[in-house]
Formats: sequence, structure tokens, C-alpha cells
Amino acid sequence: SLHRIKASGLKLQLCTNETQATRENFVRKLRAMGFDVSVAQVTAPAPAACRLLRERGLRPHLLVHDDLVPEFAEINKTNPNCVVLGDAAENFTYANLNEAFRLLIGMEKPVLISLGKGRYYKETDGLKLDVGAYMKALEYACDVQAEVVGKPAKRFFESALAELGVPPEQAIMIGDDIVNDVGGAQQCGMRALQVRTGKYRPSDENHPEVKPDAYVNNLAEAVDIILQEL
Amino acid sequence: SLHRIKASGLKLQLCTNETQATRENFVRKLRAMGFDVSVAQVTAPAPAACRLLRERGLRPHLLVHDDLVPEFAEINKTNPNCVVLGDAAENFTYANLNEAFRLLIGMEKPVLISLGKGRYYKETDGLKLDVGAYMKALEYACDVQAEVVGKPAKRFFESALAELGVPPEQAIMIGDDIVNDVGGAQQCGMRALQVRTGKYRPSDENHPEVKPDAYVNNLAEAVDIILQEL
Repeated sequence: SLHRIKASGLKLQLCTNETQATRENFVRKLRAMGFDVSVAQVTAPAPAACRLLRERGLRPHLLVHDDLVPEFAEINKTNPNCVVLGDAAENFTYANLNEAFRLLIGMEKPVLISLGKGRYYKETDGLKLDVGAYMKALEYACDVQAEVVGKPAKRFFESALAELGVPPEQAIMIGDDIVNDVGGAQQCGMRALQVRTGKYRPSDENHPEVKPDAYVNNLAEAVDIILQEL
Repeated sequence: SLHRIKASGLKLQLCTNETQATRENFVRKLRAMGFDVSVAQVTAPAPAACRLLRERGLRPHLLVHDDLVPEFAEINKTNPNCVVLGDAAENFTYANLNEAFRLLIGMEKPVLISLGKGRYYKETDGLKLDVGAYMKALEYACDVQAEVVGKPAKRFFESALAELGVPPEQAIMIGDDIVNDVGGAQQCGMRALQVRTGKYRPSDENHPEVKPDAYVNNLAEAVDIILQEL
């Protein structure tokens, strides 16, 4: 399906909430599976956070996965004035959470930037709490609202569109997550298809707030429809 | 002040949100400081949780401080159908949180019982996240609302009154916490004095929701007023 999109001349950008690896590693994995994509074609929360940090002169304390740290290599992290929270996995220790909390509560106006707000995800050894749960813990303890930079944040889709150089009405989102993919893209003015694979659940079709522009059985069918419409 | 209350013939019950020690250990510490109190005079979240577990036939998975576990000695904990959350401190590990989460999300109707909802507290080595923060994390991940059994829960004060054998209108709460002590007791029909010591902050006097029946400078002054009124 990716080959057919490329051959048609359409532009393509991958939007991921992956925060356990740099884009470089993410792309390496995809290429190993046979997908012909480049780092520039990936929009991910960490680079979006870096843009935001630079724009606002923020120096982060990072509570993220070890493998994500290189994304922040060029960011000044001395004397932190905000906390950036990702899916830190094994780094979500009691000591690390207390450290992030103390930094936040010690700030005149605590700034908490979260690389996503997922509730949980599945790994081979079972379900794991995702970054959103730890975000809620810190939000409650510090009486602060986190700024979320991953999907479904409008900013995130805007930055993907900026990288494509395309206005929202000329773009279409294909995703399996009714809120993060479909809802986020639509709030940004894009159309969105939901694939009936991956995270999709039949109950999504009765979602109280989000309704995709269409359902498709899989990515191949989404590409069929888009190419027909051209 | 405690001696004067005892000498006057008034009944006394201590209401604590302590969840890092059994009542036995809590009382031992107080007695070592010279306070003449007994275990029966202490109302604490863990025994309140045990009553609730028994009433509803619930078998808990415990995520609590090691020192609190003996309070649950007589409770059936096999094949758990609920999670009891306390201030687990060093037991708040990534693995333990995922384990509690998996049990909850695997229940048809997840039951989360929290021994408090404090945001944070201070120890000699700095501020620490309290049980409320971890409660919020699990609530969000499982889309469930925790049942709080410590202060300011109405149930908690009712159980203190039951132990005293006194109706709420004949009881008075003295505390330093505007929401947990004063607000909780008042919601239960008791009058409540706030002492201007401990957790008290001048901003409490402008609290948007809770207004104590009176302020007193300290416990001794509270006892003076109460004994005068007799």
C-alpha cells in the first residue's frame, strides 16, 4: 500500500505516538520489515516537544525512556524549568516520579509537557500503564494541567501538515485509533478514515464524540478508495 | 490537653489517615511521646477498609506499605476481586503498579479502594507523592472511580462516631486540615474546629467550600473552649 501511494505521486507522512525510541530507531525497524520510509517522513511526539521547548525557552527535566533521550541531545537541560514526560517504562520508579514531582511543585508555575496521554498498551508480557496514567498522577499532585504534544493534539497534526506542505483540506488521515488518529485529525480540519484493524473495536462505531468520514477494512482498501477519488 | 479531656469525662477518638503503619505501631509511637492512648481509640483507613471488604465479600489485592499488611491479616486475599491502595512508598514500583492495573482492568467491573487521596507529604528527605496521585493514575487507566475510605469520607467519620457511641451533633472534630478534617466532619453532621498549627495555612480561612465552626490557635485552646461550654 505504501508503494502504491508513493507511485501515485501523493505525499505521505507517518504520525506516531512512539516515545520509546528515536525516530532513527523507529525507521530502522520499519525498514527491516520492508517499509521504504525515511526519518523525515515521521512525525513523532519528541521532536514536536523539542520545537515547543525551543520556542518557549524551556529547559526540560526528562522522565522518558532511555532510548528516547538522544532526541533531546541538542536541548539545554541545565537548571530545568519544566518536566517532559514520556512512556518511561522501567524508568517509572518511585524515586524518579518523586524527583519529577519535586521539580514541578518547586516551580512558581509548574510546566508539565506530556508526550502522549495513552492509558495503557499491550506488550508480549502483558498490559502496561502508559504515559497518560503517570501524567494524571503528576497533574493531581501538582494541581496542574499537562500540555500534551502527541496525538490527538491539534498542534501535532499541524506540524505533520507543515512537514508535508499541504493544507488540512487536501490531506487525509488513515488510522486505527478513533480518538487519537481520527478525532485528532478531524479537529485539525482533515478528513479521516478508520481502518478496522489493530486497535479498532466494533464499539468504536458508536463512539459518542468521534465519527470517521468512512470506515475501511484495512490499509489496502483505504488506498484503493483514495486513488479512485483522484 | 488529652489528659484534661480524659479528666472531664468526655470521650475521645483519634482520626488518622496514617497508612504506613498498623494502629498498634502508631499507638506505640504516640505512647513513646507520652500520649496516653489505646488502639481502640484510633480510627484509621485500614480497619475501615477491612470492614468494607467484609461487608461486600471483597478479596483484595494489596498495594500498600509493608508495615500495613498485618492490618489485613484476617482478610481472605485469594483470587482477588478488588485492589486496595495505600501509601505504598517504596512498593510503588513500575512492576507493582502494572500488576495492580492488570488485575483491575481484567475485572468485569473494576473495584479500587483507596486508603486516602492525599496529593503529597513531607519527609525528612523531601516531598513525596502520596496515595492520591497513584489513585488518579489507576482511575484514569481503568476508567474507574476509586472508593476512598480515609478522611474526608463520610463513612470514615461515621465509623469513628460508632466507636464512640455518640451521635454527630454531640461530637466535635479538632483538626489542622481544612478539607480532610473540618470538611469531612461537617459533612457528617459534626461541628469542627480548625487549629492554626500543623498543616494549617492562612489561606485556609478563605477556602471556597469549607468554613470551620471556629478557629483556635492550638489544641489547648480548643480544649479550653470545649470545657467552658460544658
